[in-house]
This record gives sequence, structure tokens and C-alpha cells, in this order.
Amino acid sequence: MTLLNIQPNSMKAKLSLFVFASFLSSGLCMAQDKAPVDDWKSASSNQPGKEYPKVNSEGRVKFRIVAPEAKSVGCTFRDSSEFTKGEDGAWYGHTRPLDEGFHYYAIKIDGAEVPDPSSMMFFGAMRWGSAVEVPAHDQDFYALKNVPHGQLREIFFYSKSTDTSRRAFVYTPPGYDQNPQQRYPVLYLQHGWGENEYGWGVQGRTAWIMDNLIAENKSKPFIIVMTYGMTNDTRPGGLRNFDIKPFETVLVDELIPYVDANFRTIADQPHRAMAGLSMGGMETKMITLKNLNKFSHIGLFSGGSISMEDVDKTPGFKEKVKMVFVSYGSRELGGDRPNRGGDPKANTEALKAAGINSHFYVSQNTAHEWQSWRRSLREIAPLLFKD
Amino acid sequence: MTLLNIQPNSMKAKLSLFVFASFLSSGLCMAQDKAPVDDWKSASSNQPGKEYPKVNSEGRVKFRIVAPEAKSVGCTFRDSSEFTKGEDGAWYGHTRPLDEGFHYYAIKIDGAEVPDPSSMMFFGAMRWGSAVEVPAHDQDFYALKNVPHGQLREIFFYSKSTDTSRRAFVYTPPGYDQNPQQRYPVLYLQHGWGENEYGWGVQGRTAWIMDNLIAENKSKPFIIVMTYGMTNDTRPGGLRNFDIKPFETVLVDELIPYVDANFRTIADQPHRAMAGLSMGGMETKMITLKNLNKFSHIGLFSGGSISMEDVDKTPGFKEKVKMVFVSYGSRELGGDRPNRGGDPKANTEALKAAGINSHFYVSQNTAHEWQSWRRSLREIAPLLFKD
Repeated sequence: MTLLNIQPNSMKAKLSLFVFASFLSSGLCMAQDKAPVDDWKSASSNQPGKEYPKVNSEGRVKFRIVAPEAKSVGCTFRDSSEFTKGEDGAWYGHTRPLDEGFHYYAIKIDGAEVPDPSSMMFFGAMRWGSAVEVPAHDQDFYALKNVPHGQLREIFFYSKSTDTSRRAFVYTPPGYDQNPQQRYPVLYLQHGWGENEYGWGVQGRTAWIMDNLIAENKSKPFIIVMTYGMTNDTRPGGLRNFDIKPFETVLVDELIPYVDANFRTIADQPHRAMAGLSMGGMETKMITLKNLNKFSHIGLFSGGSISMEDVDKTPGFKEKVKMVFVSYGSRELGGDRPNRGGDPKANTEALKAAGINSHFYVSQNTAHEWQSWRRSLREIAPLLFKD
Repeated sequence: MTLLNIQPNSMKAKLSLFVFASFLSSGLCMAQDKAPVDDWKSASSNQPGKEYPKVNSEGRVKFRIVAPEAKSVGCTFRDSSEFTKGEDGAWYGHTRPLDEGFHYYAIKIDGAEVPDPSSMMFFGAMRWGSAVEVPAHDQDFYALKNVPHGQLREIFFYSKSTDTSRRAFVYTPPGYDQNPQQRYPVLYLQHGWGENEYGWGVQGRTAWIMDNLIAENKSKPFIIVMTYGMTNDTRPGGLRNFDIKPFETVLVDELIPYVDANFRTIADQPHRAMAGLSMGGMETKMITLKNLNKFSHIGLFSGGSISMEDVDKTPGFKEKVKMVFVSYGSRELGGDRPNRGGDPKANTEALKAAGINSHFYVSQNTAHEWQSWRRSLREIAPLLFKD
């Protein structure tokens, strides 16, 4: 599916409400018609020392919830099994097979929707709450390895337009402190609706993905800046009237100058990129097309695409844009889902035919979820800032 | 109270089990004998957009929990009111007046102990879960202000002794990147039992405390390093046999060389300090007294003190130790609580009389809790690395 119908020359975006319906969806709808394979292992997303949740080789997740007096226990994954009391008095239940990768969820106890006390906490769907990692065949690319590590730095910059000190996370690549004469390009990287500035650094595994790519010489070292995209002040329906201007001001007029003053950036348009996922892709498209004197590389992950109509409407696009990257999870594409911004693959081909350096990537067997976006970062990084 | 009976020349610490009984205790025991003052305000520790929990001018905390089918709802603060269903169908209840500052808690729903979905998440008491900020008369010192900010950096260092890549957080002071010729002293700062390397950076407000002190010229700029003290592998009772050696190896043989190689430290004994809270204080005492060729400044927050017996047992103490700082919350002291390591104030006075630069600080009206430790950091910082 395509989420967005963006008019790049307007401040407003007409956003499909599909973004909400699909936000927590993941993978196949499957009835619980057979017994799960009994090879459960503790999830890597568990809190220290917690045995549950467990994941099996089918990608099912099994929960254990201690709720002695509860009448009913469940979880927010659709098509999950009934939760029943085990011999130890705790409640057990499991999900359908889930896609590889990372999934938000909550536990339900007698109608209360609460975090699973055994899960680490992540910000998504507008709350700090639970999520589970389903092991992936390609999880090595976002694993913590004994390679040279960059740093993820929490910074605060003063924003005059909002009169607040705002948090950002800045990834500096390995060697940044050891090479004080070197300057680096910068990627501004945005989270999606319901998420915040922690998303890419925590569940996105940005630092480990980049450390690993750089260790394998697959990507140039560059700086990545992640801040809150001001996406969550509006509610469903309100997004139709989402105004990019407040965030555009914070990003372009306040954060970029701060980063250029406080980090060893190459502070020019050819060495500045922006990318984002879902609503962060929408923001990326709106902001970059209005500020092509600032950005040269554009990445949209599950967040629309750029059509020749967009190109024709945007003065200087062909001269200024050095690379366009569009990606989706395979489960987001095809079928009867609307492609309101135009088919992303066809749009990419049209840009290529027009001589624009344009790339289309499909994450196989994943949906509108972090595994698609981790892979998208892995794919876009080697394409950025090529001379 | 005094938590610890440490034999500095031994690898073992005989630890009072009081540490566990007191871990979540805070403030006065008070019956719910009158109606709370009706001036509730949303807590600053709430998740974005959440109205509850609220705190009133007495320091009571009021909760709102949506649990439509629950038979009973409560919280882990002792002496709290009954939770009852309000007109909106949600459950409401409130605590006794709590101390100023930060308190861990959990919500109980039909016997399940779960995080409050409206609270931010913090690691303490061995889990990521809820906590609430009660406004403090002196909260300005740990507030986020528009002053020059340092950075809190997440780093990973390889540890041969454990064959793991281990996380640490490193606070670099304002100006660190702008002054590439300047080198800085380093404080190694430890969390307590049941906590981890996030404690000082998140609930401890380390960066904001230091930014504010430095902006007011009350502290020299220095680097602070926070890593996991390997405190949580043993359970109550097991702590009697706590072995400092694994953490001592990680800290002294692996982390310190990594930090000295990767940050612009002044890499010598006079410019290296260690401090810690509660069990982190115990670790600090054990490690520093065994490694006085590495550390010159020692801080123990609610975690024992140093006696003349300790001094006499430790070769070179008087020559090598430049400063000893001991602190407690006022509610931890006096009464019939045991002072197994010796009375901390008397110990401090004895060290002073022996010519050792020694300081004792009492955080007024706080207990074994983060408000005592935030204040302890504020108090120790100006005493560190004086020439």
C-alpha cells in the first residue's frame, strides 16, 4: 500500500487513514489450527533474567503472565490463542506466526491494556510499552559485534520557535574522535507516527547497523541525526491537516545550524541527506522538496514515493537531487491496496528513465514494521554520499 | 542506617539485608486519615500526553487505571488509599505523602504487578517499570535549562574477561568537542543494587546536574563514566558472598584503558575518581581501596563510610587519597538502625582529625532514594579535582 498523497508545493498533506489501521499489523492472518512447534527460546527483547516471552521457530510468541486473581488475560496480537492458567498458576498464551523482526504489543488483564513486565520498553503507538524481537534470518546485520563502534550521543539544542530545549540523538561513526581533522556528511533520519526520537536508536538499531556496514567497508562513515518529528500532536483525522511548518522550522532553521556548529560536518547541500519511515517519509518528502538548497539525498521508507509530477513541480529537482531511495515491505505492496501517491516502483522507474539516480527496495516478507526499516537503512547507507 | 560492613582487604562484603527491605521505602509511614489536598498536577514523569499520575502539594500521588473488568486495583506504595472506580469507569487511588523526588512503583491489577502504562519507564528493583517524580523545593538544580549542554554518549567496549561488548554511558562536558586540545579528569559513577548503567543518566539526571553546575561555575568540567556494576546476578542472601573481582576486572583492566584511549582524559591517579550509591558505594570502597594507584577521590552515597580502621589497613591511604565524600539521606540515619560500618559522620570526623580531606553530607528529609543521590552528585562535584 501507499500511505500518502502529498502535494509537495502545499503545506498540507492528505494522508490516508490506512496509516492507523496498519500501524500494528504485521504478517499473515492465520487461524490457530495446529499446535505450535515446541522449540521455544527466550526473546532477546526480554528484560534481564526474564524467561518469557519466548519465540519458536515458526515465529510465534508465547507469553507468561502472573495475574492470580484475573478473570481473563490476553495480548494485542490478533489471532492469538486463548490465554489459560498453567499448573504454576500463571497465564500462558501464544500468537500466530509473526514476521521476522520487531513487533510492538501490550498485555490485557481484565480489560486493562498494560506493558508486559517481562519485556523491555520501546516508544511506539504513542506509548512506552512492550515489544518482542522475532529472530530473523538476516539478524546478523543489526547485531552487536566486536567491531569498532561509533557513539550514540544524546544532545539538547535550544529551539527558538518552540522555546524549548529539544532532544536529539546523534550517531557519530567509529573514528570520529580519533580523526579530529576529518569532516563528515550528515543524514537526518525520521521515525514514524506514534514514535519519537528514540525509535531509530533503540528498535531501529541504527548504531549497530552502521558500525557493521562501516566495518565491512559497505558504507562511508557519516553522521546520523535523529530528533522528534512532532508527529504525535494530531490524532486520527487530524493528520489530514498535518502542518509540516513547525517541524520544518525546528529541523531546517534550528537543528541543522546547531549540528553544523557542534559536529564536524561537511555543511553543504551535497553532503546532507534526509530519510524517514512512514509519516517520517512524508515529512522527508515535504521538507526536502521545499529545501533542495539544503538536501541532496532523499529516502522514503514505507512512506510514499516521488513521481515525475513531483519532479516537474519542483524547480531544480534534476540538478539538485543526487539520489532518491524508496522502499517498502513486500506485504505492503500489491493486492487491492490503494497507491494514492502512485505505484512506488513505477515512480522509481520513471525517475530512472528521466536520468535521476533512483532506487527501489522491497523488504521480503515484512510489512509496515521495523524489520522493513532496518533493512532500508542497510540498503540506503551504501548509496549515500557517493562522489 | 548504614548498609554495609566491608572488609576492604577481603574480596567479600558482609552486606546487611537492610538494603533489600529499604530499597523501595521512602518517607514517613502515615495513615490515610484525612482527605488529600485537591491541587493535583500531572507528574513530570508521565508519558507524553498522559494526565495521570498526578501529584499534589502534600507529595501524594494519584493514579488513574483503566481496568474495566478488574476486581481490584492498587499500587506498590505502602499505606496507599483503596483504589475505587470513578464515574468514568476507571480506577482511582492515591498514596500517602511521599518524599520529594523520584520513586519507583508498580500497579497491581487482580494480583498482577505491572508497569503503569501512563508512566515513563526506568530500570530499578531489577526491572524496567514505573516511577513518579514528586516536585522538590530544590528541583531547579536537576532541571533541563537553556545552558550549554554536554553530551551523554552510549558506547560499547569489548571486555575480554567476560567476552562481551559492554554498554557504558559517558558524559562529556560542554565544550568537549570545541576544545580539542583540552583534557579532562574522569569520575566513574556507579548505580545501586537492582539498577543498571541507565540509572545515573536517566533518573539520576547526571547530565543536567553537571551542565547546570558548570554553567554556574560551581564545578570544573570533567568526564563521567557509568557502566553496569554487575550487581544483579546475585539475589538476596547471595549478596553476602558478592565477589567484587569480576566487576573490578571489567572496570579497572578494561573500561578505564578504553576510556583513556578513546576520550581526552587526564589519564593519571590524581585525575580519576570513583563514586557510587548504595551497593555501588560498597563497590567503590572495595575497588578504590585496592587500587589507590588508580583512584584519588572516593564518593560513597548511602553506601557505607571509611573508618580509621580502613585507613590503617590500607597502605598509602593518607598519601594517595585526595578526598573522601560520604553522604546519606537524613531518614537513613539515627534511630535504632544499625551502623555496621561505623557511624558515617563520626568516621568522617575521625578522618578529618587525621588530616584527610573528608566531607559528610546529609540530604534533608530524604531516604534511600534518588533525591538523596542527585543531591550527593551536586555536592561532590565541586569537591572533585581541585588542584
